[in-house]
Amino acid sequence: MAACRVALLAVAAGAFLARSAIAGDALKQQVDGWRGAHETQILSTFDQLLRFQSVAADPKGTEAAGAYLRRQLEDRGFHAELLTVPNAPPVVFGSLTTPGAKRTVVFYAHYDGQPVTPSQWATPPFDPVMRSGPLGSGEHIVDWRSATPPYDPEWRLYARSAGDDKISQLAFLAAFDALKALGQKPSVNIKVVWEGEEEAGSTHLKEILRANAGKLSSDLWLIGDGPVHPSRRPLLYFGARGVVGLDATIYGPIKALHDGHYGNWVPNPAAMAADLIAELRAEDGRILIPGVLDDVRPASKAERDAVAALPPVEDGLKQEFQIGRSETDESVTDAIMRPALNIRGIRAGKVGDEAANAIPVDAEVSIDFRLVPNQRPEKVRAQLEAFLRAKGWYIATAVPDKATRLAHSRIIKIDWEDGYPAFRSDMSSPPARAVIAAAAGASDQPVAVTPSLGGSVPLYVFDDVFRTPLVGLPVANHDDNQHAANENIRLQNVWDGIDVYAAMIGELDW
Amino acid sequence: MAACRVALLAVAAGAFLARSAIAGDALKQQVDGWRGAHETQILSTFDQLLRFQSVAADPKGTEAAGAYLRRQLEDRGFHAELLTVPNAPPVVFGSLTTPGAKRTVVFYAHYDGQPVTPSQWATPPFDPVMRSGPLGSGEHIVDWRSATPPYDPEWRLYARSAGDDKISQLAFLAAFDALKALGQKPSVNIKVVWEGEEEAGSTHLKEILRANAGKLSSDLWLIGDGPVHPSRRPLLYFGARGVVGLDATIYGPIKALHDGHYGNWVPNPAAMAADLIAELRAEDGRILIPGVLDDVRPASKAERDAVAALPPVEDGLKQEFQIGRSETDESVTDAIMRPALNIRGIRAGKVGDEAANAIPVDAEVSIDFRLVPNQRPEKVRAQLEAFLRAKGWYIATAVPDKATRLAHSRIIKIDWEDGYPAFRSDMSSPPARAVIAAAAGASDQPVAVTPSLGGSVPLYVFDDVFRTPLVGLPVANHDDNQHAANENIRLQNVWDGIDVYAAMIGELDW
Repeated sequence: MAACRVALLAVAAGAFLARSAIAGDALKQQVDGWRGAHETQILSTFDQLLRFQSVAADPKGTEAAGAYLRRQLEDRGFHAELLTVPNAPPVVFGSLTTPGAKRTVVFYAHYDGQPVTPSQWATPPFDPVMRSGPLGSGEHIVDWRSATPPYDPEWRLYARSAGDDKISQLAFLAAFDALKALGQKPSVNIKVVWEGEEEAGSTHLKEILRANAGKLSSDLWLIGDGPVHPSRRPLLYFGARGVVGLDATIYGPIKALHDGHYGNWVPNPAAMAADLIAELRAEDGRILIPGVLDDVRPASKAERDAVAALPPVEDGLKQEFQIGRSETDESVTDAIMRPALNIRGIRAGKVGDEAANAIPVDAEVSIDFRLVPNQRPEKVRAQLEAFLRAKGWYIATAVPDKATRLAHSRIIKIDWEDGYPAFRSDMSSPPARAVIAAAAGASDQPVAVTPSLGGSVPLYVFDDVFRTPLVGLPVANHDDNQHAANENIRLQNVWDGIDVYAAMIGELDW
Repeated sequence: MAACRVALLAVAAGAFLARSAIAGDALKQQVDGWRGAHETQILSTFDQLLRFQSVAADPKGTEAAGAYLRRQLEDRGFHAELLTVPNAPPVVFGSLTTPGAKRTVVFYAHYDGQPVTPSQWATPPFDPVMRSGPLGSGEHIVDWRSATPPYDPEWRLYARSAGDDKISQLAFLAAFDALKALGQKPSVNIKVVWEGEEEAGSTHLKEILRANAGKLSSDLWLIGDGPVHPSRRPLLYFGARGVVGLDATIYGPIKALHDGHYGNWVPNPAAMAADLIAELRAEDGRILIPGVLDDVRPASKAERDAVAALPPVEDGLKQEFQIGRSETDESVTDAIMRPALNIRGIRAGKVGDEAANAIPVDAEVSIDFRLVPNQRPEKVRAQLEAFLRAKGWYIATAVPDKATRLAHSRIIKIDWEDGYPAFRSDMSSPPARAVIAAAAGASDQPVAVTPSLGGSVPLYVFDDVFRTPLVGLPVANHDDNQHAANENIRLQNVWDGIDVYAAMIGELDW
């Protein structure tokens, strides 16, 4: 209860939680002790999990990862099954009843990863490699299997999904093992929902949740995804931005043309793409599409206070990312409270040694919108398309044929991804307070509390289906290169993750 | 002389030359007859020449092509040698004195081709393949070696450099063979200059010409390069646009970042590249860089008249290129009389299935400027760089280090190519009139006469070194895909090329 008061005060004041001196502290010591004696075993399990090529492009690799996780749960005494719908990776569901427990908590995470471009990786993305520090820091590769634990907590394990998001499954499994070994019973009934389609937009998640709503009923969802605070403090988040992505192709001449003979007369699709981007997005990142910002719900005072209380990280991030400026003068957390229009990629013609003096046949632009409450993906889509039509674009849904090409001045084909809206949850509900207290007990550092992640987690789905409180529980280091090449997890974050998961399994109560 | 009068009238009126009924007509018949009996032999030589991988990326392939061409000249009784400077492909030089001739004509062409991206080609770029028509027209591959001549003149031979510009060497060699077989002596002393570095900017050409100025003295340069008129009429040109290219890299964060967590705060280099392009170039192609248009010499009345007299081709080109509009309402020839800023390519992040929700580390933009008289490449370069600096860009000459990245808001690295200025020559000089007359005699169609090609040929170099009249003598079909994948030459253009070269070797006189 003392811990609950600390949490309440912290949220109310937007301050950081000092570590509370309750049972959590003793548990953390014991879990750390067990972990110190089992580091090799923990990493071996992680290594196995990371070898599955669970990315959207590899449905078999994704299925295999799901089957592996199901076995891991069964081996620990869970009832486990795969929840499926056609043409989607399975959701791994597990449940374990705790005699006498009055609350039920669902642990959500995802076992699929972002697409990979192996040529950009220092070592293959599905062949985990330990390094003595971050790539490019003068680090070296470590043969951890031959090393004697305890391992250096600054080592990093490099693999796709290491931080986003297989660490959440690993931390859960290791924490469960630790509690069992320590003879500490869970404090709640446990359910597990591990999704395989998060990085592809969680297209089928709602359908699966709805179909299994009874089975999945609970008092709290803990969403294990995202990075901790850039200050390295533990982080709890109560919301996330939504997302909707698209890939647009702009059409030029049917074949590449000598730009001397036809430049200035045949429209250049690369220039059209650039002009369009400049019309969609101001230099400071502001979205210029009419109407898109109209629906944005302003941040509440509690949210603004929580953001204001976060420690400044901007100078450190500029050093880390080697950037001479940020797009605006805001803090990074203020910036991610707004919607964003990100250019993920552009491709047109050829550059460098391959460049020919030619007008390209097309230009491809990949974009994602990050959404905040109360924006809706389908409305953003309609607003963008209306803007394009007003600017004279013909929106094609397939590669245009000759008649279509001749009939329109500006042709754009848009392939929309399925997206989802943002969500923010109540930061002061009883279970929210209990989670904050348990997290505080599991760490030597103050806990950072934020109204929203910048990234997207399909929190709205859980809310839509269950109307149950939820809290985000990230574990990965902020500099884990998630969504990029050379994704990695820092060992100290693995160890911290086990501590916090042990607290959530073993101590949560309200 | 009758032909000369026709030519004069044509230029003065900007009209097209009707075919003159002079000796040229008889010669054309005889050359056509010889060609009809030797089509297989002519194509075999062409096939050999096209197999050399004479592109900048393959110095050995380029050298081998030069050596082959030298042997071809020697086999025909020419004095032949390779004119070289270090680190440049050789210029193939040949000379043959005609007893009694009072004029000397240099035949220029180039044997190097644009870079290739083999994956974009229907068949390998250096493995010539005959097709029954243009790719995508329902054509089929033809085994011409097993077919019986005369071949269908609508067949097309696909290979890099087929139209740009090995056809000019092939037409010269075949025309020479035809005249020899027919017992017709050349009407002029002949010199040949075949360059191997044109598509890489002719960087060393001037140095080689200067070093061999005495050897290369002449009364006329015939520049064998470029396509004929889109109406398929023979074309003579008296100038060409200049060119200067660059490859620019814009820097973002040192590593790709999750665009949910950092989008809106970390500058996105893909968006910066798009904004920059929109600042450099208006939607209608107008160059927006201050000062760049100030030096442009307005077209003279004679030039404007010549352009106005060209037959309209715009509707046909729109159909052929499948475009719904042109960038401006001008004719294509009017458009290419102006300078152009072409976007050859853009690359940033990933698109399509490879797209990750990440802020890219950099963006690369490849640009070429087409220049008109009196623009200078070095001045355009200075104007662009001044514009960038005024907009807050730091111009790097190497990949920036951490200190540089942190010190500047906007960093762009520019790799400039060597360029050269435009040139326009006098359309009414006596040798110009003689060339127009000879070309008229060699064709059943009216000859189109234009003040400038849209493409770039280093005409200024010849003028700088020799101050000798020059005329452009293209042979390739306008739809030969030059500078792009699936470059090709239409057989009728090969045959026409042999006719016009035979006229230039055997009939030119003034």
